[in-house]
Amino acid sequence: MTSNNIQLDNNGRLKHFLTTEGLNKNLLLNILDHAESFAGVGDRAVKKVPLLRGKTIVNLFFEPSTRTRTTFELAAKRLSADVLNINIAQSATSKGESLQDTLRTLEAMHCDMFVVRHGSSGAAHFMAKHVSPRIRIINAGDGNHAHPTQAMLDMFTIRHHKKDFSRLKVAIVGDIMHSRVARSEIHALTTLGVNEVRVIAPLTLLPARVETLGVHVFHELEAGLEDVDVVIMLRLQRERMRSALLPSEQEYFHNYGLTEKRLQVAKDDAIVMHPGPINRGVEIDTHVADGERSVILQQVSHGIAVRMAVMAMSMGSLVDKQEEKT
Amino acid sequence: MTSNNIQLDNNGRLKHFLTTEGLNKNLLLNILDHAESFAGVGDRAVKKVPLLRGKTIVNLFFEPSTRTRTTFELAAKRLSADVLNINIAQSATSKGESLQDTLRTLEAMHCDMFVVRHGSSGAAHFMAKHVSPRIRIINAGDGNHAHPTQAMLDMFTIRHHKKDFSRLKVAIVGDIMHSRVARSEIHALTTLGVNEVRVIAPLTLLPARVETLGVHVFHELEAGLEDVDVVIMLRLQRERMRSALLPSEQEYFHNYGLTEKRLQVAKDDAIVMHPGPINRGVEIDTHVADGERSVILQQVSHGIAVRMAVMAMSMGSLVDKQEEKT
Amino acid sequence: MTSNNIQLDNNGRLKHFLTTEGLNKNLLLNILDHAESFAGVGDRAVKKVPLLRGKTIVNLFFEPSTRTRTTFELAAKRLSADVLNINIAQSATSKGESLQDTLRTLEAMHCDMFVVRHGSSGAAHFMAKHVSPRIRIINAGDGNHAHPTQAMLDMFTIRHHKKDFSRLKVAIVGDIMHSRVARSEIHALTTLGVNEVRVIAPLTLLPARVETLGVHVFHELEAGLEDVDVVIMLRLQRERMRSALLPSEQEYFHNYGLTEKRLQVAKDDAIVMHPGPINRGVEIDTHVADGERSVILQQVSHGIAVRMAVMAMSMGSLVDKQEEKT
Repeated sequence: MTSNNIQLDNNGRLKHFLTTEGLNKNLLLNILDHAESFAGVGDRAVKKVPLLRGKTIVNLFFEPSTRTRTTFELAAKRLSADVLNINIAQSATSKGESLQDTLRTLEAMHCDMFVVRHGSSGAAHFMAKHVSPRIRIINAGDGNHAHPTQAMLDMFTIRHHKKDFSRLKVAIVGDIMHSRVARSEIHALTTLGVNEVRVIAPLTLLPARVETLGVHVFHELEAGLEDVDVVIMLRLQRERMRSALLPSEQEYFHNYGLTEKRLQVAKDDAIVMHPGPINRGVEIDTHVADGERSVILQQVSHGIAVRMAVMAMSMGSLVDKQEEKT
Repeated sequence: MTSNNIQLDNNGRLKHFLTTEGLNKNLLLNILDHAESFAGVGDRAVKKVPLLRGKTIVNLFFEPSTRTRTTFELAAKRLSADVLNINIAQSATSKGESLQDTLRTLEAMHCDMFVVRHGSSGAAHFMAKHVSPRIRIINAGDGNHAHPTQAMLDMFTIRHHKKDFSRLKVAIVGDIMHSRVARSEIHALTTLGVNEVRVIAPLTLLPARVETLGVHVFHELEAGLEDVDVVIMLRLQRERMRSALLPSEQEYFHNYGLTEKRLQVAKDDAIVMHPGPINRGVEIDTHVADGERSVILQQVSHGIAVRMAVMAMSMGSLVDKQEEKT
Repeated sequence: MTSNNIQLDNNGRLKHFLTTEGLNKNLLLNILDHAESFAGVGDRAVKKVPLLRGKTIVNLFFEPSTRTRTTFELAAKRLSADVLNINIAQSATSKGESLQDTLRTLEAMHCDMFVVRHGSSGAAHFMAKHVSPRIRIINAGDGNHAHPTQAMLDMFTIRHHKKDFSRLKVAIVGDIMHSRVARSEIHALTTLGVNEVRVIAPLTLLPARVETLGVHVFHELEAGLEDVDVVIMLRLQRERMRSALLPSEQEYFHNYGLTEKRLQVAKDDAIVMHPGPINRGVEIDTHVADGERSVILQQVSHGIAVRMAVMAMSMGSLVDKQEEKT
C-alpha cells in the first residue's frame, strides 16, 4: 500500500503525526492498541522501556506550554530517549535565524524527532515537508489547526470506558472556532465511526460551514446534551471575552457552563472530558469537574501512553498491532 | 508503631519530608546515617547508584532558586531517577489553574515525588495532605516556615566535625525571624540533644516568644559567641533594609558581622557555617568565610548526600539504618 | 614532557580547552583524530557511548546561546554524562554571589566539567586558574577572545574536504575585530601549517596589528578571495551598525557579501563555511549559503563530534591517538 499522505511512509505506516485528518480507521486503532500496551508502564516500579534508547527528541516550543511539554518529555524519557527542550521564543530566532535554518541546524545535530508547538496553523506540516527524511515530526498543537495527540488520548479514554465507538453520541462543547483540539477530535471521532458527533456553541464561536465536517450543530446546551454518551468540554480562552466574541464569563457559564443539573439529560453513564487546564466556574462547574462522571485526570494519564505510542510508532520501533491480528 | 504525623507512614518511616519539627531523634539520626553511606558517591568515577531508576521526580519551584534546584536535581540524577524541572511561576498557573489542579495533573502523569519550593508557609504540608498516597513530597523551603534538608545537611556537617551532639553549644546568628533555615535548625538541634542552642539577633529580627523553642537569646554577638562549638550564620536578605527593619548593611556588619576577632571568644575548634549564598562584608567577613574554620563548602557537598538519603528513604528504597543496628 | 600551559597536564595532555593559541600541532591533530572516531556516533541507531557515564557536566552560560548550549548538551548526553544547564544571567548572581563563590559551590557538588560561555574575555582562563584540580573547563566563547571548539570543528570540516592543510589558502571574511571565532581559527590554521591565511575586512573591523598573527590582510573581497581553497564567512553582529563602525547592511553586503559571482575567483573546489546563525543577504547570499560549495550544515554535525572529543580527552577518557600511531 502506498500513500501520498505526508504523514505516512510508503507502506502506509505512521511517519509524522500532524493531524488526525486523513488517517484511516485502522491506523487510529493501531495507535490506541499500542497506547494500551504502554498504559501499564506508568504503574511499574521502573517506569521505563528501552525502545528509543540513544535517540534524540527535541521539544521545539514556539508557544510556551508547561503541561504539554511535560507530557511529551515524560513520554520520551520513559521510552529511554534523550530529550532536549528548546523554547524557541527566547532563542535562535531572536538572532534573526529563519525557521528553516533552525530546522536544518537541528537536523545536522542528528536529532531524530521534533515535537513542535507553534502559534501558526500549518507549522508542523511545513516542517514535515522541509525536514530530511530521517526526521520525524509530532504536532503538539499548531494555531487553530490541529492537536492530534490530545485527540487520540481522548479517543483512548472514550474507548476505555465505552468499548465500541459505533453506537456513541459525543458532544463537544465550547469555542469550536478557535479550538485545534475540537478539529482533531471531530476528524478522529468520524473516522472511528462514532454514531453522532455534536458541537454545541454560540454562533460566534462556530466556524463557518462546520456541518461539512459531519457534525450536528446545537446552540443550546440542554438540547445538545440530550442522550449523549460522552461530553467533551473545551477550555474557554479568556482572550475571547476581550475580543468581544463573548459578553462575559458569567453569561458564558450561565449559557454553556456544564453543571450537574444540565448533565441529567445525558445518558446515565455519560463521561465528562476536558483537555485541561480547566477554568472552574467558567466552562465547567467544580462539582462536575471533580464528580464521578469526570474522567479528566484519566485523560492526563492516557496522554503519556498515547504519546509514547505515537513516538515509538513514528520511529518504526513497533510492529503493526492490526497486522499482528490478521 | 503508628503515627499521626503526616510525614510518617504507619510504621513510623519517613514518607514526606516537610519539617524537622516533630520528628524523633532516631529518625533524624537515620537520615544522617544514610547520608553517610551516600557521601562517597560524589567521589566515585561513576557517580550513580540505581536506587531510583525509572522513578520520576519533579522539581516544582514556585520561587526561583538555581542553587537548591541544582542540588536536588543532582541528587535525583545520582540516584538514577528521571527529573522534570517545572518553574511554576512562569507556567500553568499563568493560565489560571489552581495549585490543586496542577498537583492532580502531575499525579496523573505518574510522577513519584515532588520537590517543592514555595513562598507561602505551609505549602508543602498542604500538598502532602492533598496528593495521592503514591506521591512523596520533599519541602525545599516554604515561606518563613521550614527548610528541612538544609537543616539536616547542617546537622550532618556538625556531626562530621563534632561527633557527639550532646555537649555542643551552637549559636545561630542573624535574621531569625524570617529564616526558615533557622526554624528547621532549632528543631533539629534540640531533638538531637544539643546542650545549648543560642540565637543572636537584634530585637527586630527575632520572632515573638522565640525562647519557647528552647533557645537562649542574645542581642550582642560577642556575648552569644562565647565558648560555642558551632556558629551558624544566616544570610541577610537585603530586602530587610528597605523595609526599615534594619538601618544599613554597614551598621549590621558593625554589630553582627562575623570577623576573625569576634570569633576569638568561641572555642578554639569552633566551626563556622552558612547556608549560602554568602554576602561577604555584610553578615560575614571574607577572611572568616574562606578561613580554616569555615565549613561552608563542605555543607554544599553534604547537601547532595543528605538529599539523596531523604529521597531514597521516602521512596522506601532503603532499609532502616537504626533498625539494622538493633 | 611537561608544560606550563594551563590547558595541559604534566604529560602535555589536554586538561582544559580554553583557546587554540599555544597548543601544538600534534595536540590539534589529536583532537581531530578523536573527533573522527566520534563522527559516526550520530548515525548509529543508539547514539551513545558510555565514556562519561556517571560524570556531571555543567553548562554554565553567562550569555544566552541556545545553539551552542544545545551542541554541548547533546555531546555530553551522547557520552552518557549527566548534564546540568545553568543560565547564570537569571540566577545565583542575581542574589549577589560572586563568580568565585558560584564556582566553588558547583565544585563542592562534585561536578566534573564546566562548559562556560561568558561576555568577558578571559573568563574561562580565570575559571581554569581558580577551580580545584579535579574540574575541567571548556571555553564555549569568552568575549572577543576565543571560541576554540568552533575553530576546531572548522578545522575538522576543512580536513574532511581538503585532507592536507599545508597547501591551502584560507580566507576569513568579516568582522575580525570582534570575532572570537576568527581569533581561534587563525591560531589553529597557522599551527596546522596552512600555506596562507587571509583576513578580509574593512579597516574599521580589523584589530590593530593583525598581521602579527601571521595573516595577510585584504580590504577588498575579490582580491582576497582569489585562488583560495576555503572561505570562512563570519556572522555580522547587527550591533556594529548602530555603533557606527559600519554604514548599513546594504552597503556591507555590497562590499563584503559573498555572492556566486564573487566566489568565481576562488578555486573551483573551494568550500564555503560559516559558524551560524547566518544573516542571509547581509554577509552571505542565500544561493551561496544553500549552494553546493556550502558546508555550513556539515560544520554543525562535526561540532558534536569535536565537542565529544574535547570533552572525553580533557576527562582523560581517551588514549592519545598520535601516541598510538608512533
